[in-house]
Amino acid sequence: MQQAIKLASQAEQKGEVPIAAIITKIGSDNIVAEAYNEVEQQNNAIMHAEIIAITKATKLLNSKYLSDCAIYVTLEPCAMCAQALAHVKIGRLYYAATDPKGGGVEHGACVFHQKTCNHLPEIYSGMMENESRQLLQNFFQKRR
Amino acid sequence: MQQAIKLASQAEQKGEVPIAAIITKIGSDNIVAEAYNEVEQQNNAIMHAEIIAITKATKLLNSKYLSDCAIYVTLEPCAMCAQALAHVKIGRLYYAATDPKGGGVEHGACVFHQKTCNHLPEIYSGMMENESRQLLQNFFQKRR
Repeated sequence: MQQAIKLASQAEQKGEVPIAAIITKIGSDNIVAEAYNEVEQQNNAIMHAEIIAITKATKLLNSKYLSDCAIYVTLEPCAMCAQALAHVKIGRLYYAATDPKGGGVEHGACVFHQKTCNHLPEIYSGMMENESRQLLQNFFQKRR
Repeated sequence: MQQAIKLASQAEQKGEVPIAAIITKIGSDNIVAEAYNEVEQQNNAIMHAEIIAITKATKLLNSKYLSDCAIYVTLEPCAMCAQALAHVKIGRLYYAATDPKGGGVEHGACVFHQKTCNHLPEIYSGMMENESRQLLQNFFQKRR
């Protein structure tokens, strides 16, 4: 998660909302794929860190599923990213800060807990929550 | 929607689940972007028709939002695609068949009706529902 926080602060320097995601094989520290938000850079509001990281990882592993992988995200995924993680059958989901305004894991759509959801990963949250929240707060304060 | 159904049956011929999406400017019949499911072709379980069509349209229109656009999808979008459509602030959503098993608009996550959702498009459903459902049923029957 430390590496994901670092990556998120790099995103900030490029004018992106500082959120990042890292995918590893479960039980390994080797990074399979990493990404930060590229909404501005790609001029596309769906280019969240998770979507980019998933696409990189499926290419690199040559697999449409990521069952033996873990993803580390600095913020609770939105409903789009949560359902995307279900579609690729991610093994584990770790996220730092919760997102009461836009989250889709433990807020709002609670994607993984719907009957329409095909997959429930192991989910862990709260690690490095303060660092992630601080990055986001600084970013939005500067923009006001 | 007729064009979307045609496109979905092309997807079937390529071994993809026959679902397609077409984006137009609201009030125009000119197609801005079209796509079908490319889960098999791209070997990536998140490559739904809507995600690909959105990405094409944002590029072509050079805009991260699609507020003045309508999307025609042959099946009720899942939670991932519904939230993606919210993120790009799609103006109108038309879909043919409903999807009680995996839909995220009027089933399960009911994405657009959550407090965490930033956008509610105009939503219309049911046009050419039988044609779309027939395509899907034929596809899955052949696979069994």
